Amino acid sequence: MQSLLDDIAALIGASNVLTGNDVAQRRVDWMSGASCRAAAIARPGNTDELAEVMRMCHAVAQPVVTHGGLTGLVHGGEAQPDELVVSLERMNAIEAVDPVGGTMTVQAGVPLQTVQEVATDYDLQFALDLGARGSCTIGGNIATNAGGVRVIRYGMMRQQVLGLEAVLADGTVVSSMNRMLKNNAGYDLKQLFIGSEGTLGIVTRAVLRLQPRMLSERTALVACPDFNGITGLLRHMGRELGGSLGTFEVMWRNHYALLTAESGRNTPPLPTHWPYYAIVESLGSDDANNSAQFSAALESAFEAGLIEDAVLAQSAAQRQSIWAIREDIEGLIEQLAPLFTFDVSLPIPDMPGYADTLVDSIRERWPDGRVAVFGHLGDGNLHVSVGVGSSDLATRREVERIVYGPLSELGGSVSAEHGIGLEKRDYLALSRTPEEIALMRTLKHALDPKGLLNRHKILAEEG
Amino acid sequence: MQSLLDDIAALIGASNVLTGNDVAQRRVDWMSGASCRAAAIARPGNTDELAEVMRMCHAVAQPVVTHGGLTGLVHGGEAQPDELVVSLERMNAIEAVDPVGGTMTVQAGVPLQTVQEVATDYDLQFALDLGARGSCTIGGNIATNAGGVRVIRYGMMRQQVLGLEAVLADGTVVSSMNRMLKNNAGYDLKQLFIGSEGTLGIVTRAVLRLQPRMLSERTALVACPDFNGITGLLRHMGRELGGSLGTFEVMWRNHYALLTAESGRNTPPLPTHWPYYAIVESLGSDDANNSAQFSAALESAFEAGLIEDAVLAQSAAQRQSIWAIREDIEGLIEQLAPLFTFDVSLPIPDMPGYADTLVDSIRERWPDGRVAVFGHLGDGNLHVSVGVGSSDLATRREVERIVYGPLSELGGSVSAEHGIGLEKRDYLALSRTPEEIALMRTLKHALDPKGLLNRHKILAEEG
Repeated sequence: MQSLLDDIAALIGASNVLTGNDVAQRRVDWMSGASCRAAAIARPGNTDELAEVMRMCHAVAQPVVTHGGLTGLVHGGEAQPDELVVSLERMNAIEAVDPVGGTMTVQAGVPLQTVQEVATDYDLQFALDLGARGSCTIGGNIATNAGGVRVIRYGMMRQQVLGLEAVLADGTVVSSMNRMLKNNAGYDLKQLFIGSEGTLGIVTRAVLRLQPRMLSERTALVACPDFNGITGLLRHMGRELGGSLGTFEVMWRNHYALLTAESGRNTPPLPTHWPYYAIVESLGSDDANNSAQFSAALESAFEAGLIEDAVLAQSAAQRQSIWAIREDIEGLIEQLAPLFTFDVSLPIPDMPGYADTLVDSIRERWPDGRVAVFGHLGDGNLHVSVGVGSSDLATRREVERIVYGPLSELGGSVSAEHGIGLEKRDYLALSRTPEEIALMRTLKHALDPKGLLNRHKILAEEG
Repeated sequence: MQSLLDDIAALIGASNVLTGNDVAQRRVDWMSGASCRAAAIARPGNTDELAEVMRMCHAVAQPVVTHGGLTGLVHGGEAQPDELVVSLERMNAIEAVDPVGGTMTVQAGVPLQTVQEVATDYDLQFALDLGARGSCTIGGNIATNAGGVRVIRYGMMRQQVLGLEAVLADGTVVSSMNRMLKNNAGYDLKQLFIGSEGTLGIVTRAVLRLQPRMLSERTALVACPDFNGITGLLRHMGRELGGSLGTFEVMWRNHYALLTAESGRNTPPLPTHWPYYAIVESLGSDDANNSAQFSAALESAFEAGLIEDAVLAQSAAQRQSIWAIREDIEGLIEQLAPLFTFDVSLPIPDMPGYADTLVDSIRERWPDGRVAVFGHLGDGNLHVSVGVGSSDLATRREVERIVYGPLSELGGSVSAEHGIGLEKRDYLALSRTPEEIALMRTLKHALDPKGLLNRHKILAEEG
């Protein structure tokens, strides 16, 4: 290993190869605060350097873990003491903006929020948005096919990427920097690298799609009398708002009440006795039109009995106070500690039964156990928070079985947007067939025959 | 071969194995009317039968060509006399509709138009739309990642597919029938089969995404004074209409005038002396709102000098008469015969220069040559029609060099939506790097090591 590190230092500069305490100081998991255990961290400055680092690693079969913003939730950034971390942190330039074509060309290490802000400078928007925007990087967003709060309107990260460049395990640079909205010239190779969590290649650059900027954003918090109200409201708003429905987030009462009245952490804009609460947003170009359409759609939802109570944000501060409840992850950590969090998807009609069974099962096993459910309901995606008073591995496994168990039969997924990483690897077979997993292995072997990239992530070792 | 055909007949029934004249009667290319030359056509009735057919073919290394609706334009359906055609025509059932989740589960052989109509029955829409809707099949739409006239609003076929099932070259059934909008549980395998033109597997079933139905559709034909007007109008409408911009199709004067005044085939709704014409559509849920927003956006475009003249369709018949010009492919065939058609993409700002150079180059070589340019400009996609009085192979090659030559430098693509097939195979390297093509071969070898599926399509034989 030392000889390899010396060679890499000679190539990219000694100050860009971190070892010892500089490695241990780096946290690979923001929830647990766990330290990086890798042998070293290499920080190449450009694609050529990174490709050469990979050629060196490939020659001696050195396994590599890629680091972006380290905001993932499935231990994708974890590294073993015999592994080398490649960090994209120095490759953080915005290379070009094409306002006519609506594209931005960036290096993988640029933070999401920087991309959003630069797009705004050009009177455009970058449509991906999620809580970790300040720290997460575009490369990580691509590798994990990030989701967030605008998926119902703009799709996941996959839909925001027109082209990309990746370095394969052997150092080959595959430059697929397409800027075209439509390009059917052969296989769409970028799809291989999006959402495969760095196991098939290291994303180094990307061409991102920009969208027209929406100047008007109207937000409401509504309460529904039952789950039929929620699904009816989703269809109603989809139809009435046309292409403008930007967000449809739902909080179960156990989530909404916990983070408002029960904990005192947030002021409840609506009373806490309703079973379901939804944050609904409409995005438009013209504020008068958008507001009128949004108000009319909410009014007809009232008349149809889909909602029982509602508050329309009249200011940015009011909007923020609504979102604060939904985004109060610290509150969940505080109230449910030690906290287990999950990210599942399932058919919308099955959600209330799934959530009820979940609460019952947890309570049956742990009478003081707590469950809070919220999620991007319009996308079929729930985030489940569970606290049972203990966080040891045996307890985790028990809770995981309760949360993941019913998904297989429902056609759901153990990961809607967080990915598999190490955390969900043992549950992959609940969501994918043996033939699918075999085909994943075929791809992994074809692209990374020595198994050097993000070892043991997504797919368990064979044999 | 006869022994294989006997085995297949025993499995799927003799009436479902066509030979002789039944094969020759089948046209594999609607533009040329060329006959099918395959040894036989097998028509399995379900996935299990198709998988067993592929296992039999794999055992004896029998190459196979897949047939959908045969509306492709790049000779993807062509078969050699030593090849077996597998037609999905009997696998044409709609298996399920989930109006709450917004999904439809279908077999690959179902025609696009049937899917559109069934979605409408549920007050939803299937968003892909293109001229061949009555004949083309969902399986073909997936295999070619079809585009069409709604891409600017809803994306290509790739965005409409949530899950799919495919049969691999060895008969393995990979069932990836995800119904979730978000599923990051491992590699997104469906992406492999979308747009790879049947070279990696045979798509047998799919879960399609349905969208809220848009009841209001407003259409305008506008004339622009110059190309800055066109690009300005595109940005303007994108911003002013928010998510409602449904179509942005552009005709160069040489296209618009040819199919109206010059040929007398269509009545020109606007005079023919402007350099560019655009069909712009706004899709909305409420007709009063949508109409008001659309009219206001066109008015402000006038005031900004982006457009010089416009006609707003006041009836379905008027809308149809506008689209008839754009969709008059028969007119192109008649006026430019023998006709060469192309489907390229390139950065929008480069389009006027590209088109001018194209006309100059054609005229320089063939003084009586004719060029007509139109396309899905909002998607960066142009369709170029060329007639030079001859259609022999040498002439075709000369014209192809003129049309494709400049694309490489511009970062464009030799295929925006039609695919590569046989027709563009020799030009793939103009749009893709050697490393990309090598990675495509890696995938082809990994999934179809015997090279049985749609041989020689997309990738030329090696060596």
